Amino acid sequence: MTRRYDEVMSLSLRRGFIWPSVDIYGGFAGFYDYGHLGAAMKRKWEDIWLKYFLGLSDRYHLIDTTNILPFKSLKASGHVDHFTDTLVKCSDCGVSHRGDHLVADTTGKSAEALSTAEIDSEIENLDIRCPECKGKLLPSTEFNMMFPLSVGPTGTDQAFLRPETAQGAYLNFKREFESLRRKIPYGLAIIGRAFRNEISPRQGTYRMREFIQAELQIFFNPRTFDDELDFASVEDEPIRISFEDEKEEGEVGEIRAGDLLDRLPKFYVYHMVKIQQFYLDILRVPRDRFRFAELGEKERAFYNKIHFDIEMNIDSLGGWGEINGIHYRTDHDLKGHQAGSNEKMTVSVEGERVLPHVLELSFGVDRNIWAFLDVFYENEERALLRLPREIAPITFGVFPLVSKGGLPELARKVHDSIKDDFSCFYDETGSIGKRYARMDEIGTPFCLTVDFDSLESDDVTVRDRDSTHQRRMSISGLPEGLRTLLKEGSGF
Amino acid sequence: MTRRYDEVMSLSLRRGFIWPSVDIYGGFAGFYDYGHLGAAMKRKWEDIWLKYFLGLSDRYHLIDTTNILPFKSLKASGHVDHFTDTLVKCSDCGVSHRGDHLVADTTGKSAEALSTAEIDSEIENLDIRCPECKGKLLPSTEFNMMFPLSVGPTGTDQAFLRPETAQGAYLNFKREFESLRRKIPYGLAIIGRAFRNEISPRQGTYRMREFIQAELQIFFNPRTFDDELDFASVEDEPIRISFEDEKEEGEVGEIRAGDLLDRLPKFYVYHMVKIQQFYLDILRVPRDRFRFAELGEKERAFYNKIHFDIEMNIDSLGGWGEINGIHYRTDHDLKGHQAGSNEKMTVSVEGERVLPHVLELSFGVDRNIWAFLDVFYENEERALLRLPREIAPITFGVFPLVSKGGLPELARKVHDSIKDDFSCFYDETGSIGKRYARMDEIGTPFCLTVDFDSLESDDVTVRDRDSTHQRRMSISGLPEGLRTLLKEGSGF
Repeated sequence: MTRRYDEVMSLSLRRGFIWPSVDIYGGFAGFYDYGHLGAAMKRKWEDIWLKYFLGLSDRYHLIDTTNILPFKSLKASGHVDHFTDTLVKCSDCGVSHRGDHLVADTTGKSAEALSTAEIDSEIENLDIRCPECKGKLLPSTEFNMMFPLSVGPTGTDQAFLRPETAQGAYLNFKREFESLRRKIPYGLAIIGRAFRNEISPRQGTYRMREFIQAELQIFFNPRTFDDELDFASVEDEPIRISFEDEKEEGEVGEIRAGDLLDRLPKFYVYHMVKIQQFYLDILRVPRDRFRFAELGEKERAFYNKIHFDIEMNIDSLGGWGEINGIHYRTDHDLKGHQAGSNEKMTVSVEGERVLPHVLELSFGVDRNIWAFLDVFYENEERALLRLPREIAPITFGVFPLVSKGGLPELARKVHDSIKDDFSCFYDETGSIGKRYARMDEIGTPFCLTVDFDSLESDDVTVRDRDSTHQRRMSISGLPEGLRTLLKEGSGF
Repeated sequence: MTRRYDEVMSLSLRRGFIWPSVDIYGGFAGFYDYGHLGAAMKRKWEDIWLKYFLGLSDRYHLIDTTNILPFKSLKASGHVDHFTDTLVKCSDCGVSHRGDHLVADTTGKSAEALSTAEIDSEIENLDIRCPECKGKLLPSTEFNMMFPLSVGPTGTDQAFLRPETAQGAYLNFKREFESLRRKIPYGLAIIGRAFRNEISPRQGTYRMREFIQAELQIFFNPRTFDDELDFASVEDEPIRISFEDEKEEGEVGEIRAGDLLDRLPKFYVYHMVKIQQFYLDILRVPRDRFRFAELGEKERAFYNKIHFDIEMNIDSLGGWGEINGIHYRTDHDLKGHQAGSNEKMTVSVEGERVLPHVLELSFGVDRNIWAFLDVFYENEERALLRLPREIAPITFGVFPLVSKGGLPELARKVHDSIKDDFSCFYDETGSIGKRYARMDEIGTPFCLTVDFDSLESDDVTVRDRDSTHQRRMSISGLPEGLRTLLKEGSGF
């Protein structure tokens, strides 16, 4: 882990964003919990994600589906047979390793595209030994990453924890199609947990065994979807993109959306623009920290035809890292479930039977939270978390300048008058400087301070986190004044 | 299942509230998914729950923790040894039954308090046979209801899916205590899934194998907590309550909170009042549908010292049913984890070492959603779901009276001007009567209709769901006019 990783993790642990699960029992590799600030930030991230992506169409909706799925549904989706990693055991100490990681750690290049046979020959050619004990490694095997379990008292009903939320949307496709008045395109979003029994979880919160996804599955007619979107409104947008052959070097081009149409379908590029706007315009991620990175044929999951990762440049993880993906899954999943269940998944569109295709916008919620903690955290002159105000766990700190002379009472009154409308935090302990510093460190965009002038003039000081500039605001004008302040694009 | 059950389930299936999971594969007993209306309603229920219960104290916070927990943590909590039901197998057909259900179905009385030995003798005395095949039943055994699984590639790390969210709070108690500046009382809320391998899931969504809990764990000093609460503010509140000996007959008394103090601790009664206010005042549940029901010593979970269920009278489930519970868990859990982990769980309060006690407010989210669909659904003159507006999936329907003459364009404009502030649904298909009926059936409290007058006078009709009364409201005054309307206690 990098020094920067330790720095961000130290903030996270100390203040209650994210920390290792079950650590009183010595921890549990691959599992993390959200503390009170992390949980607040996560729920806000989810709210803003829902508002933006469901806002793309009246016909995109949130659903919520079970984490346990029966064997046959994941057999039909291909996960029972194909959702595997390459497992390499040491003949000496018995420790298990992920084959592509062993190769990548030696060559310094991604080995995700290699088959088990290729990994075996790389291990032999490069004379890779067990990283734990230097023992000889056994031939690799395919390891299914799903967690199996059995349901019911007799143990005969085989099931798995879902490896992705997506399947819940495919399994509900037919019912929602009926309920939503039989039209495509329509979309189903799910925010929830997914589970993968990673061989060797590493990089902290980046590769977890239990993680949270926010995914939108868009079901569409591939013959008409391009024309149903307002491409003209996005065609001039420059997209930050790295093609397969450029991405290892970290090269990022900016290519006009319209000029990508010779390489990618219109509907795909349209959604790239929408996602980029979410990150750059809504969440105000610095432009140079964001890109799309193409995956080659061998790197893609078995169900994807076109796949770009959505990456942020995350210092604590050593550079560009996948936080989301945009996946053209074609009719792979509905076709699989149609065959597996014998239920027709075709729908009638103007008299024609169509098996809808799927575009999946897949977001790693934990990876987003970590990336935002990393990218927005400065720890130089003062510790400062420049979080976009929409996802800051606390929006307004409310303080009396000192805890006497009637100031706490008035500050409490101010707090109580706005706490139903905003996330607030009241504090009167320690010096005002320390209280500001604490709020800066957890990303609180504004602090309201009641001082002795407030008692006379019925106003408070509002302090901007990033500039530390201060303004006065009338108490009787709350909470409207704060609503107006939040609508201004930036601080003051 | 009752006729009323079929009626509510029919609404739920048709419109997209809740439905059986994976039904294209013939279903999956004990698992349900939320369709688009159910998911919207559930997220609103969670929001209002969070706002109310975290609002009880500045020191109550939301956290989020993993669903998979390692063996040793659930061994320490007592769940590995004690979280069991009585399993009775048929010697003939091999089908498994829950022992207490077999007895209860014969006697008509709850048998949850019976031991396995008592169940065996009841089965013999009453000559109970297998309900499937009339075969002879084998002696009962204890069946652990947790789902076991193994983590990591070697399968040696034993774990379980959590049977309750509560453990996540106890496991994080120490870290949050540090992060929250070392003070009790403080509280940790979790909303998330829990998993129980029910022997025979039944009653639809009422007894599920995967379900959603919203729980608040309050950690306190038992010597001082009573004095830290403002009991005077609640002491005159009449509490709807059934003691152990009254509840089977459905008797409900109304007893002044202050008069319960000879039977129950102050802190316990205080939280009963707060919960009752949530249901009666905030969610406007009819008073006669709500009560607390005491559990006797043998009915309580192994970790509870005082336990009242929070019940609603739910016709589709045949009467009073537990939807939540209020559990005084003492120091059972922290003491268990202290012993299991060798980490000190005591905290220093004014120089004294205290092992905090826990009061758990535990809510079954799915049961709440079902209870609200049941209690607020009328299907007589017109199908009408009188949901409290705060949890209605859609707050405003927006319609043009007819889909011509410029009305759709103006209605779209109205819709777009309020959709960032409220949950809205635009519709122009079919007659206006049908559109109103659809909104009534899913609980939309108000519809806004653009008619030909709107083109001239810049206003719309607002229709109240319950009374069907109509008002005019100025378009240029939106969205403020609607915000004001929502603040009025009831419709018009």
